[in-house]
Amino acid sequence: MSNSQKTLDTLCPVARAEEVLGGRWTLLVLRELFMGNHRFDDIQIQTGGTPQMITGRLKSLEAEGLISREPYSQRPLRYEYRLTPKGDAFYPVLLALREWGETWCKSEDESVAVNFTHTVCGQPAGVGLHCAHCGLPLRREEMISKQSADYALERKIRWEAVKKS
Amino acid sequence: MSNSQKTLDTLCPVARAEEVLGGRWTLLVLRELFMGNHRFDDIQIQTGGTPQMITGRLKSLEAEGLISREPYSQRPLRYEYRLTPKGDAFYPVLLALREWGETWCKSEDESVAVNFTHTVCGQPAGVGLHCAHCGLPLRREEMISKQSADYALERKIRWEAVKKS
Repeated sequence: MSNSQKTLDTLCPVARAEEVLGGRWTLLVLRELFMGNHRFDDIQIQTGGTPQMITGRLKSLEAEGLISREPYSQRPLRYEYRLTPKGDAFYPVLLALREWGETWCKSEDESVAVNFTHTVCGQPAGVGLHCAHCGLPLRREEMISKQSADYALERKIRWEAVKKS
Repeated sequence: MSNSQKTLDTLCPVARAEEVLGGRWTLLVLRELFMGNHRFDDIQIQTGGTPQMITGRLKSLEAEGLISREPYSQRPLRYEYRLTPKGDAFYPVLLALREWGETWCKSEDESVAVNFTHTVCGQPAGVGLHCAHCGLPLRREEMISKQSADYALERKIRWEAVKKS
């Protein structure tokens, strides 16, 4: 039984899920894992959280069964973090959050951060939960992502600011 | 320009959305508004947050443009909170979170908290983003909700615990 089942005296699945998430940074850590960043430094740099915050979120996500870790280096001991099936299944939440964020939390002159191509039809997928071209529900394994130039630059700057210091 | 646009130095829509949400209770406040609870006492009782926390979340949601408020009583002055179009548009995120919570954060002997009937086909909608019977994407305005007996009881107990004290 996970923390979310022990601590919450409610049947509401939204409350259970919120208990698992436990505040800021968790969604950004999951975002990085879905983007293919599996190592602590990369996750910390791109989320902008302090090492303590990111360590806490990773521990909590592991305790709740969304991620697992295995060593990729013995000296010094370093771990990679991978999504479990329970973590993988969280993808539709991030996709729905992306749609809402792109639609409601941006100015007109800001680019979409990540553009997806829908491999089923070969066309741009848009920012919704269904392909803007063919209308099929979007699945993670049927999308190819490409960061916009602005967003790629923003991530590069964050990475270089830390690696050069 | 909203807070989420001012404070976040990133194009990532997930980060923007997380900035708007700002931690625990916010999702539960939105859940209550989508369930038709529009008054402070009812929201506070059913989320289980302290009055201070719920006041803070309502203020933040109003500042970010997800809810508006209007008086329903002049003496004493009392407000009702309503979802704006930006708040309404958040529904798919809650629906995706519900699916994940029902699927991954519950034991087998616990009931689904809220069952939806899909009015388009007249059948149970299931816990996914598409109708379990007809496969169409689920829209809020095409669903009728019914709380399970256990979940209705849990909410009744919370309400009575406060109203009787």
